[in-house]
Amino acid sequence: MKVTVLGAGYMGSAMATVARMRGHEVTLWGTWLDDPMLEPCERGEVHPRLKLTLDGIRLLRSAHLDRALDGVDLVVHAVSSDGAVAVMTKAAPYLPDVPVLSVTKGFLESSRGEMDRIDLVVPERIGRRVRFVHAAGPAKAIEIARRVLTLMQFAGADAVACKAAFAGGHLHVGTTDDISGAEICSALKNAYATGLGLWDGHVGKDAHDARAACFTQAIAEMRLVARAGGGRDETVHGAAGVGDLHVTAAGGRNRAFGERVGRGKPAREVAAEMAAAGELTEGYAAIATAWRYARERGVRDLPLLGALHAIVWEGAGVPETLAGLRLSV
Amino acid sequence: MKVTVLGAGYMGSAMATVARMRGHEVTLWGTWLDDPMLEPCERGEVHPRLKLTLDGIRLLRSAHLDRALDGVDLVVHAVSSDGAVAVMTKAAPYLPDVPVLSVTKGFLESSRGEMDRIDLVVPERIGRRVRFVHAAGPAKAIEIARRVLTLMQFAGADAVACKAAFAGGHLHVGTTDDISGAEICSALKNAYATGLGLWDGHVGKDAHDARAACFTQAIAEMRLVARAGGGRDETVHGAAGVGDLHVTAAGGRNRAFGERVGRGKPAREVAAEMAAAGELTEGYAAIATAWRYARERGVRDLPLLGALHAIVWEGAGVPETLAGLRLSV
Repeated sequence: MKVTVLGAGYMGSAMATVARMRGHEVTLWGTWLDDPMLEPCERGEVHPRLKLTLDGIRLLRSAHLDRALDGVDLVVHAVSSDGAVAVMTKAAPYLPDVPVLSVTKGFLESSRGEMDRIDLVVPERIGRRVRFVHAAGPAKAIEIARRVLTLMQFAGADAVACKAAFAGGHLHVGTTDDISGAEICSALKNAYATGLGLWDGHVGKDAHDARAACFTQAIAEMRLVARAGGGRDETVHGAAGVGDLHVTAAGGRNRAFGERVGRGKPAREVAAEMAAAGELTEGYAAIATAWRYARERGVRDLPLLGALHAIVWEGAGVPETLAGLRLSV
Repeated sequence: MKVTVLGAGYMGSAMATVARMRGHEVTLWGTWLDDPMLEPCERGEVHPRLKLTLDGIRLLRSAHLDRALDGVDLVVHAVSSDGAVAVMTKAAPYLPDVPVLSVTKGFLESSRGEMDRIDLVVPERIGRRVRFVHAAGPAKAIEIARRVLTLMQFAGADAVACKAAFAGGHLHVGTTDDISGAEICSALKNAYATGLGLWDGHVGKDAHDARAACFTQAIAEMRLVARAGGGRDETVHGAAGVGDLHVTAAGGRNRAFGERVGRGKPAREVAAEMAAAGELTEGYAAIATAWRYARERGVRDLPLLGALHAIVWEGAGVPETLAGLRLSV
């Protein structure tokens, strides 16, 4: 199969590597922001973020989107949620009627001015149908590229075809038609992972109970939001919800962000510092968009997300907010 | 209320501390194995495992079980599963008809020679009714004693009365009548936490994906076993299942045990070394009893528990067993 990955960052380059392992003819296309990623790869050096060479993969710069999509059988969408509409707008004229496996996580604003799922907002904004399949589940780019056992959940009408193209060896893939539930879980987990990190900053190392309590609460809240968005409980209780929250909360940037906010520094300052150091903190924005998505659908019983929003976006103090947290589980 | 805690180990002393915080008149009774725990406490020194003083708590040695239970309103059962039948046999003549909140986790052998829940086996073996309430959920002794936010799930007919006696402040308590599901989750989580530890030993630090995949698989398998034992899915998806597995897998002895086995040392040797160092490894026995419990109830689709049993109890090699693991989620 001819597989083209849009977006040459961390996850895009990892998915390209996996597609190559499956024997596909792979193109990795970089957006106009990805030049620093592709430059060393073109010289045969390791990808700056993935730290692996991209052997046997055709690399294309942003000007060549038409060539990247020409005759392709499957597209992987690995552009950040911020860039999704811009990239897909440019891709639209060249995109064949093939499945688009999206590893992008987050909500976007629809033309009605409400937060919604990427698979709904992108087609609406670019004015054409896209056969989105959402790739959910606990998959760190570096680990899938290094053949660590990984479980993903592909969601959407073309999920089975995407599984056939990618699953095998160390990569286990489940499929579901519940794209709503899967995307909602993916969008929410960054927010809740930040919340679990707060405890590490606030209490210190011995906050295992509090982290586990909030993990449990997060799953309960994800269930409510997923239901309100048309998703199913089983998706929350599988790789997309429980699994992805587990891996995201175990470490990484969102936890680090939460930890620093938990120590008492204003979230805005922590986000600015991390951005200056080149570290993306999806959780910061994810708390705001998740809160909007849930409120716009009338979901009310979300004490943990409410506390996170109060701390991170409304300037509430960490000790008093966490002390006042009432769990609903 | 007059509250007596049976078992002066780590969790028993923590529950006594919490009961004291709620203003109860508290007695902590030590079994014949608990003398080294009580001795320093009697002199006003810290409890050797909890590392806190037990202020305002009456301490009684094993000979005084009758006095410990005299006129009591609520009993906390905090004896290890190995000692449960022996202690409750001695307690039976003095035990009033009051709720017995049990923090003991594991399966026991019934008189039919099958593995079963503690709340069923103990009454059968001691020949009298016991109003067991099972305390499930992610609660590390040191953290509940130090007022870290903790979520527990009390399960059984008297769960609400036990909640009234213990919940408050940092301790959040949910209640359910699903004692089957709650006890099964508590018994299984040590086994699966060991399994997650295997990956740390086998792959090293960057096994987050594999750990999260197996966390997801563990929840799916716990659901099957809970159903077979008369429990409900919602219990698995709450504090008793998801929450307790999260905290147990995050660290501690079972993970350490799994990690060392994952590096290739036979489980029997690791268990012996840890026992010699005074470290309990519940996960070692829990894998065997969980496997028996599930098999005796005809549950078959348990690839992860089967792999753990093969590695830990049947001498199977770690690399080939983990490489052959087929996830069902």
